[in-house]
Amino acid sequence: MNAVRVGMVGYKFMGKAHSHAYRDIPMFFPDAPVPVMQAICGRSAEGVGRAAAQFGWAEAVTDWRELVARDDIDLVDINAPSDAHKEIALAAARAGKHLFCEKPLALTLADSRDMLEAAEAAGVKHMIGFNYRFAPAVQLARKLIAEGRLGRIHHFRAVFLQDWIMDPAFPLVWRLDKKVAGSGAHGDLGAHLIDLARFLVGELKEVVGMSETFVKERPLPSSMTGLSAHGSADGATGPVTVDDATLFLARFESGALGSFEATRFAGGHRCTNAFEINGSLGSVKFDFERMNELQVYFTGDDADVQGFRRVLATDPAHAYAEAWWPPGHTIGYEHTFIHEIVELLKSLQENRQPVPNFHDGVLCQAVLEAVERSIAEKRWVSIDEM
Amino acid sequence: MNAVRVGMVGYKFMGKAHSHAYRDIPMFFPDAPVPVMQAICGRSAEGVGRAAAQFGWAEAVTDWRELVARDDIDLVDINAPSDAHKEIALAAARAGKHLFCEKPLALTLADSRDMLEAAEAAGVKHMIGFNYRFAPAVQLARKLIAEGRLGRIHHFRAVFLQDWIMDPAFPLVWRLDKKVAGSGAHGDLGAHLIDLARFLVGELKEVVGMSETFVKERPLPSSMTGLSAHGSADGATGPVTVDDATLFLARFESGALGSFEATRFAGGHRCTNAFEINGSLGSVKFDFERMNELQVYFTGDDADVQGFRRVLATDPAHAYAEAWWPPGHTIGYEHTFIHEIVELLKSLQENRQPVPNFHDGVLCQAVLEAVERSIAEKRWVSIDEM
Amino acid sequence: MNAVRVGMVGYKFMGKAHSHAYRDIPMFFPDAPVPVMQAICGRSAEGVGRAAAQFGWAEAVTDWRELVARDDIDLVDINAPSDAHKEIALAAARAGKHLFCEKPLALTLADSRDMLEAAEAAGVKHMIGFNYRFAPAVQLARKLIAEGRLGRIHHFRAVFLQDWIMDPAFPLVWRLDKKVAGSGAHGDLGAHLIDLARFLVGELKEVVGMSETFVKERPLPSSMTGLSAHGSADGATGPVTVDDATLFLARFESGALGSFEATRFAGGHRCTNAFEINGSLGSVKFDFERMNELQVYFTGDDADVQGFRRVLATDPAHAYAEAWWPPGHTIGYEHTFIHEIVELLKSLQENRQPVPNFHDGVLCQAVLEAVERSIAEKRWVSIDEM
Amino acid sequence: MNAVRVGMVGYKFMGKAHSHAYRDIPMFFPDAPVPVMQAICGRSAEGVGRAAAQFGWAEAVTDWRELVARDDIDLVDINAPSDAHKEIALAAARAGKHLFCEKPLALTLADSRDMLEAAEAAGVKHMIGFNYRFAPAVQLARKLIAEGRLGRIHHFRAVFLQDWIMDPAFPLVWRLDKKVAGSGAHGDLGAHLIDLARFLVGELKEVVGMSETFVKERPLPSSMTGLSAHGSADGATGPVTVDDATLFLARFESGALGSFEATRFAGGHRCTNAFEINGSLGSVKFDFERMNELQVYFTGDDADVQGFRRVLATDPAHAYAEAWWPPGHTIGYEHTFIHEIVELLKSLQENRQPVPNFHDGVLCQAVLEAVERSIAEKRWVSIDEM
Repeated sequence: MNAVRVGMVGYKFMGKAHSHAYRDIPMFFPDAPVPVMQAICGRSAEGVGRAAAQFGWAEAVTDWRELVARDDIDLVDINAPSDAHKEIALAAARAGKHLFCEKPLALTLADSRDMLEAAEAAGVKHMIGFNYRFAPAVQLARKLIAEGRLGRIHHFRAVFLQDWIMDPAFPLVWRLDKKVAGSGAHGDLGAHLIDLARFLVGELKEVVGMSETFVKERPLPSSMTGLSAHGSADGATGPVTVDDATLFLARFESGALGSFEATRFAGGHRCTNAFEINGSLGSVKFDFERMNELQVYFTGDDADVQGFRRVLATDPAHAYAEAWWPPGHTIGYEHTFIHEIVELLKSLQENRQPVPNFHDGVLCQAVLEAVERSIAEKRWVSIDEM
Repeated sequence: MNAVRVGMVGYKFMGKAHSHAYRDIPMFFPDAPVPVMQAICGRSAEGVGRAAAQFGWAEAVTDWRELVARDDIDLVDINAPSDAHKEIALAAARAGKHLFCEKPLALTLADSRDMLEAAEAAGVKHMIGFNYRFAPAVQLARKLIAEGRLGRIHHFRAVFLQDWIMDPAFPLVWRLDKKVAGSGAHGDLGAHLIDLARFLVGELKEVVGMSETFVKERPLPSSMTGLSAHGSADGATGPVTVDDATLFLARFESGALGSFEATRFAGGHRCTNAFEINGSLGSVKFDFERMNELQVYFTGDDADVQGFRRVLATDPAHAYAEAWWPPGHTIGYEHTFIHEIVELLKSLQENRQPVPNFHDGVLCQAVLEAVERSIAEKRWVSIDEM
Repeated sequence: MNAVRVGMVGYKFMGKAHSHAYRDIPMFFPDAPVPVMQAICGRSAEGVGRAAAQFGWAEAVTDWRELVARDDIDLVDINAPSDAHKEIALAAARAGKHLFCEKPLALTLADSRDMLEAAEAAGVKHMIGFNYRFAPAVQLARKLIAEGRLGRIHHFRAVFLQDWIMDPAFPLVWRLDKKVAGSGAHGDLGAHLIDLARFLVGELKEVVGMSETFVKERPLPSSMTGLSAHGSADGATGPVTVDDATLFLARFESGALGSFEATRFAGGHRCTNAFEINGSLGSVKFDFERMNELQVYFTGDDADVQGFRRVLATDPAHAYAEAWWPPGHTIGYEHTFIHEIVELLKSLQENRQPVPNFHDGVLCQAVLEAVERSIAEKRWVSIDEM
Repeated sequence: MNAVRVGMVGYKFMGKAHSHAYRDIPMFFPDAPVPVMQAICGRSAEGVGRAAAQFGWAEAVTDWRELVARDDIDLVDINAPSDAHKEIALAAARAGKHLFCEKPLALTLADSRDMLEAAEAAGVKHMIGFNYRFAPAVQLARKLIAEGRLGRIHHFRAVFLQDWIMDPAFPLVWRLDKKVAGSGAHGDLGAHLIDLARFLVGELKEVVGMSETFVKERPLPSSMTGLSAHGSADGATGPVTVDDATLFLARFESGALGSFEATRFAGGHRCTNAFEINGSLGSVKFDFERMNELQVYFTGDDADVQGFRRVLATDPAHAYAEAWWPPGHTIGYEHTFIHEIVELLKSLQENRQPVPNFHDGVLCQAVLEAVERSIAEKRWVSIDEM
């Protein structure tokens, strides 16, 4: 398989990020199968038509049911709003298409499991879009842990801090509507932390959490682009039905202790997706706002020169570096999607499941819901219980 | 009151820090009452004699009961191991002495309350040694919050990370013995975080926590100085009876959300006592390893120059700066004790209770024990319950 | 002009960066004229053929003289080794093509002037590739200065620190050969600093410099890719004929003082292209290794919260931000070329000279040579003298 | 010699720093000879009397000639304004007193040499106050270089950036008067950089510099304390006769390249005394505003974890650490003076010259004057020429 014909559903923020990845992959990863940008689908003919032209898709369509049934599509890329994921994925799987679904897999754990089952029943490949795994600095963290260079892991602490809805005048966009988004900071941001925790440290065993909605009523939206938006002119408001912030503590199966916080009310943090891991032989720190860097500490360093090293993960020794620029020439957010989709394309070529896949989506969702149950019932909840 | 005659019990790490403060105050804070270093007390005549000579105390004694009863002592400074605090404080209060007690006030909430009652019954002044409040950068954080410049506080997240006992060969020093220390990282480090939380954001309402002892058995100690130590030569070991790490989530009375973590297993962190506070109008970040700095963010800054400011709290506008050096010339750990004791001396001069005092010690202890109960019973615990 | 047909000479490091920009511009800057990747030219038919396929050029050719004469080419992009720039540019200008030339314009000031004259005589547009101007954080620095928000500029200090040739076993690549490269760190790295100085602070008046070649003899190269390379197997060596490091002091026409240093021997610095500017009302700091950030200080901030702000130049208020991702989602090195070429394309559309253009290339070269003369003659050299 | 009786001339900024050191040494360095604070001298009887009481001197006097002749004085500490250093030092040397002189040794190289000769003729010990050498992080840099762990040194670049006189309304204090201060930023700040360069990298060979006075006329001062001051009420002004900023390039005897900048017009920098050193095996970076930290890089680190380490120089492996607090508990500016004077006291005890001594003062002055000559004559000046 040297070319993969893609049909994509969704054309906003994630649609743009994925489109760019498809566009750039042949240039930077010439050994990967070539993604063919066959058709892009959206509800607004005008909107999706404009996106198709701008992003470079051969065709724009408005009926995803038709799209997923087409013979000239190998892979269905689902980045429509979260509440639409399941139906599309099930239909695409039934049609024998490989699946690439943005996170969260679905709004509920039950739905996520249905999606995984459908994909497995259809025998197709399935990937979920946890793109942060694919930052070279995160790959380096993973490598250090996998090689035992941090020893036994004791601590994982992670925060995903944003501040884009702090203004009470910011309108009630779909991400603040539980019916469409499932949850707020928890599912949007916390899901990434959970996935990184699982990627780097392993499975969680039990959790206890709390959450809050600081601004409970907001103006209805009049327009929205990306993460920015404007409120209604007529002063109409509606209730925020998701969490502004969710925190939880966790124990990992390995015995490590975890701390997680996702919030959209941390002023000064545009996109602080940050974690620190402490092991018996060393530690690593990552902050997505400086995504090319990993701070690394080794307990075994000479006694007079112990300290966190600021490693710029752009050297030949680092993941993906050879595809890009000389050392010290950094890459950005969009590159995580390129690396992610390269993994997907290679998995198709090699006839294996990509990683992370729907299993990871289901396991992440299980933790998300365990935290929600923990909050609702004010108690520790075991992941096994889910 | 222009001079305060001090009798001090304890001469190790905190004894050294306090002694230095008494020694330096007349030079840098000439308007404060002069502390007279009357007598220092310890169990080892040789050890305390050497300390007296080195630190500049007029006299060395070995019987604290005699010391607290002396007529020529106005203030009793208690920095003996934690399990001795209560008995000394009660005797000193009965003798009508003002009290300065290192944290934790006592090993249990009940004992702490006894100490507060005794101090109140005796009508003496009582202070507790939460020295981190007195870093100028922390004072600046407090000022910004008190003046409303951060708005309504949404988040407080704090960690106190150390790594001095990560080596399993590190011996079983008294701080790892529950009978003497009460608890491990929780009481030693977490107590400081709780006090800072109360100082900066207000009272906590409910908590849920978890803890772990990663290294459960250690060599018996052969010698110890400060925080360093050596293990026994004969290979004898004993059980660690305190926590290596304790984390908890909290809700504040105000509705703010709190996250707390204290650990001695965070490689690369010698003394990271760090917090971040997010309010509706701004944020602050502090890390004790860079104790002269406060990171400050305002949501109201011009749209193109928003970002955390690194404020070096050594300007004339900052607390205590006039006592020290020109802007940019930093101070260190020991200065927090100087500022703390200046507050104590001035409170005596002004005939008012110093802050923080035994009330703060009791309230901190209540949170510590609520967390412990929460861990033991695996549930949320209300502070009121304590 | 809605489309610009490009013929490019060169296909290595800069060729890749330019190609990617042409490829991505239609997606992210749909309002700019569309660059049509008509033909790419290189000496090795095999090499350029592979590059054409990988980068997305319609055609690969080996004779640049034919290329620049073709009717279906509007713009000639010159990123061949520096010693070839002049001849290609002159021919292309004579053929009436617009010119986009990588820095340095030429190996000598005289050649640079010839190129500018040729472009002017031909009445074509001409741009030079000082890509660092186009980092959003650098654009913000420029904006703050232009709006007077830093006041009168007193100081500009800049370093461009790399470490890729520190190993004496690193071979004698073309960048270390004066005949091909013109100079070493000075022309390669220092040229960028000079351009940033001119862009941000204005023209230089006089300079005095020094330089050094730390490793004077190196193995002959056996192969080279990007900035990496391998030495010869047979142990043959040759002399390094360029500078490893060049430093100089400068006075600006405005009276500001400048300090410049370019070196390839600064261990730990992969690509530290950094400057700081101090004005009477504020300061800015930039480091390319954290290219999304600008540190900004204002003397007029409130007395208790003065400090450098870390501004992440990804907000809507920042240059180019709307083309990319939400705030906090960073971009990378390659994006500077995209912005640069957008400026070029728009200048063609608007029938004006792009900035920076060959005038800037000549003025930069004048400073480079003034520094070289200053070093040769061990004296201050006025730019006017050149 | 177990006690050293000190007579000190000067009681302002440096007088306070030295006094504090004498006061604290017996507590933290009990093995050093005890400094006896015999008498402090100043022109204003009231001022010096207040200082004596506050700082803890046994006696306050106003005639330094009497002081240096007294039998009960072993060591004369000279921190009066710079123009008074020579006369006092000569008289004290003639009286057989050991000498401790603040930098700069004198206003001219000739005077400095006279002072060194006088001290040598008298056979006394002589120390100069280059306190920054004594920061533990600077000591670590020295150790790494001395042990060859940075290899051959290629680059030394240093800045001393302050901003306390940026406001044109700041008055004409003595530090801005050439007759009293000798020079401005150059002698005050640059002298420290030169000393650090010599301490860490070795002797300089030749220099070329430039300087500027940005604000040429200032209000006459009405009062002054430390580095702060207020302007005259009547609007009288006077000319600034020293440099606001001086930069220079240097070649070291070893072949290393040096860059130096001292300025009082770098907004946002309260006291950035910073240097970086690049050697063939590694690099170090220091910034006094974070004086407990040294950034350390080794070229030999594993390929995937290369990066500057942030070393907090508070570990047992670091200089002076055992005298202070546990790892991670930082020290401040004043501690550099304590370490400096411990070196002085120990040298007296061991009957050897302390380091740095008047030789270092002379050599530093030679560089300062070479730079001044270079500026006056606009040419490179060899240090030998001086």
